Amino acid sequence: MIVVMKKGASAQDISSVVGRVELDGYKASLTEGEERTIIGLVGESPTPLREDNYSSMSGVERVMRVSVPYKLTSREYHPMDTHVALNGSQAGANKVLVIAGPCSVESREQTIEIACAVKEAGATALRGGAFKPRTSPYSFQGHGETGLKWLAEARERTGLPIVTEVMDPGLVGMVAEYADVLQVGARNMQNFVLLSEVGRSQHTVLLKRGMANTMEDLLMSAEYILAQGNQRVMLCERGIRTFEKYTRNTFDINAIPVLKARTHLPVIADPSHAVGYSEHVTSIALAAVAAGADGLIVEVHPTPERALSDGRQSLNYDGFKQMMQRIQLVAQAVGRSA
Amino acid sequence: MIVVMKKGASAQDISSVVGRVELDGYKASLTEGEERTIIGLVGESPTPLREDNYSSMSGVERVMRVSVPYKLTSREYHPMDTHVALNGSQAGANKVLVIAGPCSVESREQTIEIACAVKEAGATALRGGAFKPRTSPYSFQGHGETGLKWLAEARERTGLPIVTEVMDPGLVGMVAEYADVLQVGARNMQNFVLLSEVGRSQHTVLLKRGMANTMEDLLMSAEYILAQGNQRVMLCERGIRTFEKYTRNTFDINAIPVLKARTHLPVIADPSHAVGYSEHVTSIALAAVAAGADGLIVEVHPTPERALSDGRQSLNYDGFKQMMQRIQLVAQAVGRSA
Amino acid sequence: MIVVMKKGASAQDISSVVGRVELDGYKASLTEGEERTIIGLVGESPTPLREDNYSSMSGVERVMRVSVPYKLTSREYHPMDTHVALNGSQAGANKVLVIAGPCSVESREQTIEIACAVKEAGATALRGGAFKPRTSPYSFQGHGETGLKWLAEARERTGLPIVTEVMDPGLVGMVAEYADVLQVGARNMQNFVLLSEVGRSQHTVLLKRGMANTMEDLLMSAEYILAQGNQRVMLCERGIRTFEKYTRNTFDINAIPVLKARTHLPVIADPSHAVGYSEHVTSIALAAVAAGADGLIVEVHPTPERALSDGRQSLNYDGFKQMMQRIQLVAQAVGRSA
Amino acid sequence: MIVVMKKGASAQDISSVVGRVELDGYKASLTEGEERTIIGLVGESPTPLREDNYSSMSGVERVMRVSVPYKLTSREYHPMDTHVALNGSQAGANKVLVIAGPCSVESREQTIEIACAVKEAGATALRGGAFKPRTSPYSFQGHGETGLKWLAEARERTGLPIVTEVMDPGLVGMVAEYADVLQVGARNMQNFVLLSEVGRSQHTVLLKRGMANTMEDLLMSAEYILAQGNQRVMLCERGIRTFEKYTRNTFDINAIPVLKARTHLPVIADPSHAVGYSEHVTSIALAAVAAGADGLIVEVHPTPERALSDGRQSLNYDGFKQMMQRIQLVAQAVGRSA
Repeated sequence: MIVVMKKGASAQDISSVVGRVELDGYKASLTEGEERTIIGLVGESPTPLREDNYSSMSGVERVMRVSVPYKLTSREYHPMDTHVALNGSQAGANKVLVIAGPCSVESREQTIEIACAVKEAGATALRGGAFKPRTSPYSFQGHGETGLKWLAEARERTGLPIVTEVMDPGLVGMVAEYADVLQVGARNMQNFVLLSEVGRSQHTVLLKRGMANTMEDLLMSAEYILAQGNQRVMLCERGIRTFEKYTRNTFDINAIPVLKARTHLPVIADPSHAVGYSEHVTSIALAAVAAGADGLIVEVHPTPERALSDGRQSLNYDGFKQMMQRIQLVAQAVGRSA
Repeated sequence: MIVVMKKGASAQDISSVVGRVELDGYKASLTEGEERTIIGLVGESPTPLREDNYSSMSGVERVMRVSVPYKLTSREYHPMDTHVALNGSQAGANKVLVIAGPCSVESREQTIEIACAVKEAGATALRGGAFKPRTSPYSFQGHGETGLKWLAEARERTGLPIVTEVMDPGLVGMVAEYADVLQVGARNMQNFVLLSEVGRSQHTVLLKRGMANTMEDLLMSAEYILAQGNQRVMLCERGIRTFEKYTRNTFDINAIPVLKARTHLPVIADPSHAVGYSEHVTSIALAAVAAGADGLIVEVHPTPERALSDGRQSLNYDGFKQMMQRIQLVAQAVGRSA
Repeated sequence: MIVVMKKGASAQDISSVVGRVELDGYKASLTEGEERTIIGLVGESPTPLREDNYSSMSGVERVMRVSVPYKLTSREYHPMDTHVALNGSQAGANKVLVIAGPCSVESREQTIEIACAVKEAGATALRGGAFKPRTSPYSFQGHGETGLKWLAEARERTGLPIVTEVMDPGLVGMVAEYADVLQVGARNMQNFVLLSEVGRSQHTVLLKRGMANTMEDLLMSAEYILAQGNQRVMLCERGIRTFEKYTRNTFDINAIPVLKARTHLPVIADPSHAVGYSEHVTSIALAAVAAGADGLIVEVHPTPERALSDGRQSLNYDGFKQMMQRIQLVAQAVGRSA
Repeated sequence: MIVVMKKGASAQDISSVVGRVELDGYKASLTEGEERTIIGLVGESPTPLREDNYSSMSGVERVMRVSVPYKLTSREYHPMDTHVALNGSQAGANKVLVIAGPCSVESREQTIEIACAVKEAGATALRGGAFKPRTSPYSFQGHGETGLKWLAEARERTGLPIVTEVMDPGLVGMVAEYADVLQVGARNMQNFVLLSEVGRSQHTVLLKRGMANTMEDLLMSAEYILAQGNQRVMLCERGIRTFEKYTRNTFDINAIPVLKARTHLPVIADPSHAVGYSEHVTSIALAAVAAGADGLIVEVHPTPERALSDGRQSLNYDGFKQMMQRIQLVAQAVGRSA
């Protein structure tokens, strides 16, 4: 950490900061410029450093962090790629994995039918929501445990592992009985109680970036899970909120290579939420693969115009099949398989 | 709801939409322009309308909502101001209420000391976090139930009601035993499980706007609480995330008058998080009162540079006292008391 | 346009709106719902419609546009792709074009050297700034007309057409004497005086999206150029400003397919500004091509660490050569050449 | 400036950076931490420092600026408030000034009528656009020089100085013949050609913050004007673009106290553009005054529903009169006059 003193800070101010540094168990290294003094904190101490404690001292202009605030998640501390097993494949390895299925599971028959369809087209896993986070209390909230049973049955029939969202820390155990991957949704990315709970479950987790969260926030939230000894975490970029009106979200394609450089965890892209209109989903999926995504999570529905949620962004079976074929070509073009 | 057809949509497309409207139990009213046809949905039906179901149909350009999606929260359906009782006063009535206290409670003595200090300066209620949502799993997470006990003791000594955050739906009952007002923090604004739970508790709730949520999102989240029969809700504007780097958040002052116009619930402002630097907190507090806020929630700490969290934005006792005096003058200037 | 009346608007309010509609030369088509009346404006009239004129009338809840506000730029009015000639190729046709070169031209020798290098690697055109828009008045502002002369000499030597920025409406004529393509930079996207001037020049224009402008804003700015009878316009997505700190901008990859659907003009991507770090530029370039971009504009410098501007995001020759090879593979994978 | 080396940067990397520092004429001060080395640049040199030159060197993690990049605009270099004369008052002194008038001047009679009305209500100056920056080339673009003549006539009749926008660097001289204050609009905040030109004119300038510009950007743009020897600059906060849909812009009220702390220039607020709806303009105006604004610029129109532009956000005469009365009370409450 570096403490930048104000132009004209007094000797007294500087020595107070130095005193505080020593109190916290670090060494203070002073650099005296023409205009201001800069104090570097060197050494190690059991006392965690709090920027606020320094920035609110007299004569301090500002405080700058030098190290990233995440450790277990960081590639600095864990240079090799982490692979997360999924259906005999490894997220984070060469093959681009595809998780596909409906936004919400709507019936037993339909869940099984979609599972068969996406499997045939080459999907690695089945997604489907049983508990739905809906902006309105009056919207369809999902079929709950019944929906999880349909998903489990679809897995039996197709062999596809199940990716489904959990929202309630109290239900992590129950959802984990049915699901292979616990999804933490964008709205819960900083639900720290939930993060710790899915961490403790030691289950595989798909962690979505919140719609106004930075990459650093996302990595910090992953740290909550890894801090519980659970390394089976896949990160997911699904678009952030901006002022743009022609799309549902703004897909932060930069996040794919930048996250890959900063963390060892696999990075998955969600082109459906990213753009919000089915006619553009494939373009965004191709872009994500070209940029280095380790996988995709895509919404598929047999009749999008009749879906109970997210119909506008769901591919139908034909659209999904075509996307899968095109994904293969782009994956090969960047030295990967799909 | 209004369905706008594409330029050149076929008669078949139009009649499919009309068919769907009738299937959903509404009447379709067609307006044929020079370039396109517009279909209005009229009447009432038990089937809730889903925009996606229409926007994904062939020939549809887009779908526009006409009514607001919230009901119980809306001033249209409930024109009179709702007053929420707090320490013998009413949030939403003439008096501007002030909730003050530390970011987190740090010790029994300190909690009581701060409570006495803010009471003396004229605060209506005591804030203080026992469960802290921290971006980092390694940051101080609060003293938990022990902290709640300190707060309860401070209430006994001062008579100030307690405002404290609850993050875990499973702990709502426990927190409600100690607290007078349950705070739902910005990061949990769309934690729908938690919202329903605090709704069911029938306890007073302070609901903070999420840092990338629109006013409509906030009103929809309030609707989750009101839908449980709990009208004792105060909304709180605390700043949103933008690209600005000189402040912690961007305080959306517009939200004060606009929310007051759209909902009957009281609107509280949090100038501490809004700007993030103690030297500017009073200016923002004055602005909020001038714009019509029903109350303030402000961080106060005896020695901000030693606070375990949010020291940079905490007022010390002197600063708080001066703020209270200035607030009174501005409140009077806009026809209110403080 | 559609005027939505408030719940409980009076008959008088409704008839005033209808009167205004007729005064403006349109026909009013009323839809009376259970709760509110909706008034559609039908027909054609020489009077342009102003939303504000209606939204400020008594009893009006809000006014919604149905048609897009751009005409010449819109694919609705011009369904076929527009091709813009560049060095014997056509931007907007099958081949993905690459414009490459330094942020600013720094010397005669260097300009020629870079031109040769990017040509050899397969570039279609040479970029290079002679007039630089710099945030600071103390930063290097470019070599001005001297720089343009170096660029012209580089064109003579390599045959590469020149893309360079013009900032001053008074200098459009002079810059057009040297340049093949006039670039309007992000900061000038809504400099309407400049837009009209480059339109009148009938020169080819590369129009960059502003960092806080919507796609609609960009299309409206293009409309300024097309309204002068100049259709030779290429749009450029270069990233928008968000709260993200790990990258210079947030590249809006969604804009590639969405703009292509809404306009007939070619769409170019600028991966250098989009991400701001050279190690990630190729990933973003590949993503843009996969998403359907018609071309790229990329910063290349022989020794980025010594560049007078934008060194951090410039590829060196090796990096550029490798990018070009990888671009070809991805272009082929999506059915295009490069 | 501080250069932070990567964890594990080689001795060679470090010595290259030190070499570069010395080449640039500064002294390098090394701080060796447990994990990384930090290099401070000390001393003075005629060579301006370019962050990119260092951040693109091998082994460099990142480069952090310590000083603000603006000088003449900064309060550090000019601690006393600058006062800008306006109609016998001083912007930046105790009195809160009010600039009022129509968005665009629409006729000679109307301009004079409005000038009389706002003067009677207590305005300090008359605003009115003759050259209008419009998103659409088909919208009303203003009456040009004719409009300026009407404004000049209104000044003769009322004594109110004229504030009007200039968009074209080539017309600065002409506009300055009629206007007392040259307004640089939000869309032109980074039109550096225009900034230099209004700087050279030595005329008083009102510089509006761009809708996606940071406060630092705004201060840098002011620096362009001051660098021409022209200190008569007023800054104007008018709202930034966010994802919020219920308002036209998001007014950054934080900017009022933060800018006042960082610069000696007066800060004006534009509540009309800030919120975009006339019924909320007064609330925002009061908030701005409470937060410490030195003045307001407000749109006023006799019949807003018939205005040629911005009718939805214009106050009518009654609304303006009431605002003026309320402003006085709030100004007094914060120790100022109005």
